[in-house]
Amino acid sequence: MSHVVIIGGGFGGLYAARSLKYAPVQVTLIDRRNFHLFQPLLYQVATGWLSPADIASPLRAVLKRQRNVHVLLAEATDIDTTNRRVLLKDGEVAYETLIVATGARHHYFGHAQWEPFAPGLKTIEDATEIRRRILLAFEAAERESDPERVRSWLTFVIVGGGPTGVELAGTLGELTKDTLRYNFRHINPAESRILLVEGTDRILPAYPADLSAKATAALARLGVSVRTGATVTDVQAEAVTLRGDKQSEHIATRTVVWAAGVQASPLGRILATATGAELDRVGRVMVAPDLRVPGHPDLFVIGDLAHYRNQHGQPLPGVAPVAMQQGHYVAEVIRHRLRGQPPPPFQYHDRGNMAIVGRAEAVADIQGWHFSGLLAWLAWLFIHLIHLVEFENRLLVVIQWAWNYCTRNRGARLITGEPSSPRKSP
Amino acid sequence: MSHVVIIGGGFGGLYAARSLKYAPVQVTLIDRRNFHLFQPLLYQVATGWLSPADIASPLRAVLKRQRNVHVLLAEATDIDTTNRRVLLKDGEVAYETLIVATGARHHYFGHAQWEPFAPGLKTIEDATEIRRRILLAFEAAERESDPERVRSWLTFVIVGGGPTGVELAGTLGELTKDTLRYNFRHINPAESRILLVEGTDRILPAYPADLSAKATAALARLGVSVRTGATVTDVQAEAVTLRGDKQSEHIATRTVVWAAGVQASPLGRILATATGAELDRVGRVMVAPDLRVPGHPDLFVIGDLAHYRNQHGQPLPGVAPVAMQQGHYVAEVIRHRLRGQPPPPFQYHDRGNMAIVGRAEAVADIQGWHFSGLLAWLAWLFIHLIHLVEFENRLLVVIQWAWNYCTRNRGARLITGEPSSPRKSP
Repeated sequence: MSHVVIIGGGFGGLYAARSLKYAPVQVTLIDRRNFHLFQPLLYQVATGWLSPADIASPLRAVLKRQRNVHVLLAEATDIDTTNRRVLLKDGEVAYETLIVATGARHHYFGHAQWEPFAPGLKTIEDATEIRRRILLAFEAAERESDPERVRSWLTFVIVGGGPTGVELAGTLGELTKDTLRYNFRHINPAESRILLVEGTDRILPAYPADLSAKATAALARLGVSVRTGATVTDVQAEAVTLRGDKQSEHIATRTVVWAAGVQASPLGRILATATGAELDRVGRVMVAPDLRVPGHPDLFVIGDLAHYRNQHGQPLPGVAPVAMQQGHYVAEVIRHRLRGQPPPPFQYHDRGNMAIVGRAEAVADIQGWHFSGLLAWLAWLFIHLIHLVEFENRLLVVIQWAWNYCTRNRGARLITGEPSSPRKSP
Repeated sequence: MSHVVIIGGGFGGLYAARSLKYAPVQVTLIDRRNFHLFQPLLYQVATGWLSPADIASPLRAVLKRQRNVHVLLAEATDIDTTNRRVLLKDGEVAYETLIVATGARHHYFGHAQWEPFAPGLKTIEDATEIRRRILLAFEAAERESDPERVRSWLTFVIVGGGPTGVELAGTLGELTKDTLRYNFRHINPAESRILLVEGTDRILPAYPADLSAKATAALARLGVSVRTGATVTDVQAEAVTLRGDKQSEHIATRTVVWAAGVQASPLGRILATATGAELDRVGRVMVAPDLRVPGHPDLFVIGDLAHYRNQHGQPLPGVAPVAMQQGHYVAEVIRHRLRGQPPPPFQYHDRGNMAIVGRAEAVADIQGWHFSGLLAWLAWLFIHLIHLVEFENRLLVVIQWAWNYCTRNRGARLITGEPSSPRKSP
């Protein structure tokens, strides 16, 4: 029986594994973590809305009934394409077919020194660290007597106006305006300053312009100032420097979140070295129309690690639906191959883009129809929750979610763990 | 207006603060953490049943409507009784009346070197660390080929047969028998060996003997072996040594949890130095019948930090109901004093003891009536959930809890964070 190895249990890898359920193959799914993470809701953990376990499903639990899958908790360090084996930190696994789906991390455009002061949002630990910083900032402000320092603790800068930045800024606005009301005695959280910084001339640049405007207006109602056409030129422990059209601006802040850039997982470079595959600017592997690495019929790359151009020559965005469809497609290719048929090229079915801004506020672009407000929000809710429910017992998360929305409560506002980086503590 | 300072936001401190709601006093509640922790359910976080946020409520949220309370996130380091001030890590707070309620930590009877290999269960971080170790043990066993090492990874030793040890062992039994079924391909979690070690001649020594026997039988059905009359003489990274009646036993194990002893918070010793108060063997402050430190009418000690003897000369156990009633009582004393009346002595109303063993399995001793099985379990459920529901929006935890019980699911089985101590990783 053919042995398919999948590296990465994100949307791409997990959907590939699930789609191979009835194929006559043995599947090994390798991940460093023991859970699949529903990354699109990570910002809700960062703002104390949901708990980590609400958006993470143990891979073994998700796949426990699929007897042809073996889950391996391990870290892949190298790929030996000649002998067809994946090298692990502690061992190795032989493959006949390999699917690499290790995704992307945030990156700082050559300014790695900013990371301690401006964490990104890609893992559960990122999210709880950002939650810790946001909540500690209010605590520090409450205890501070100097008005300028209070203002600096109550200033939050989010770098990057894509969906993650918009969602984070909007939720932070709700946190300060609604959830934390009456929680403090010396400060008023509603007076917080939340800045969303975007380098291009509008937020949500991948969306139609009218939706960007709608999102900006909705954010303004939540107290978020949008700063477009502004680039971050420096990040320090207590300040951010922005360069706008004409001048530089120095903003005193203790809390910066990085939602600006992504960089492909290091396995991309390893693959390129091993196979001669081309990489794009952010380290993604250029794949063939069937998602194979050119010249390597047994090697697929999918999801955020893959650079794939659609029929119009546009690269596909790094979003969950692309990864899921690619995972499903690769499983199809493998099944076709076992039957000796040639695989059709991959085609992405774009069901639309949507980003949430706040309670009953979202923007959506579905098949050319533009929605905003409550309708878009309901669509967002429906689609995301359907996907959450797909996994075992996730219905409860939906109830939790609805409950929190109705009660405006964020029960997961816990400051836990140790500081992960040398940020000045209050 | 009189200023009451409370150190510690556990059951004692929080109930004192709440009971002062309508008193003409200003209250400052100091805690190192920003949440109140429902410690009796901590073992459910350690076994992946509930999320940390399910059993922790932000103190500011709980107290937000009580305008005479100011919550201060800070760590008390010393108490200056002469000038009536609490010294903080970064500042100080003056008081007119002080309530110290900083509780207890686990301790190792002079063997602090065991802590890295046998963590205790007192904080959220303890619980997620134990969860991490338990889940990683199964992962390591799944990848191990040597049968002896597999057996050592699948051996779990819980030291201490009090309620925490019993509840942890029982839940671990359910985890291995039910929840993890079909999750692995090379090992069978149901073959795990779970050992509950108790130094006296029966588990739950504070309960009537017939209930100890019932609990032992219920644990046996869940695959837990109870070892009574056994003392731990050594704990290392890969083994535990027990001394029984006649001989020593060396048990190869990678996962040990410490539920054996508690030691009062260091503020007890600080108070003793400052006031000349007596301490008991585990560092608790001996308090007067009105819970004051003798000779200090403005200084109260309550909860696990206080040593108080009831009318029969028995010291009260370190359980939540004692702390809650003491918090309520001290608030009464303060109100009485403001009205010039002498306070009546504290009296503990023992509503009974109960410990849960597994699904529909518990033992309870209520006013001399002994229950076990489903009835005791329902009583346990009712009383604990009532208390959880008392806090804002905790109803959902009850639903979550019931859901998990019905579906036998433990959704919070996440391995997160970094190892907190030098345990050999798999």
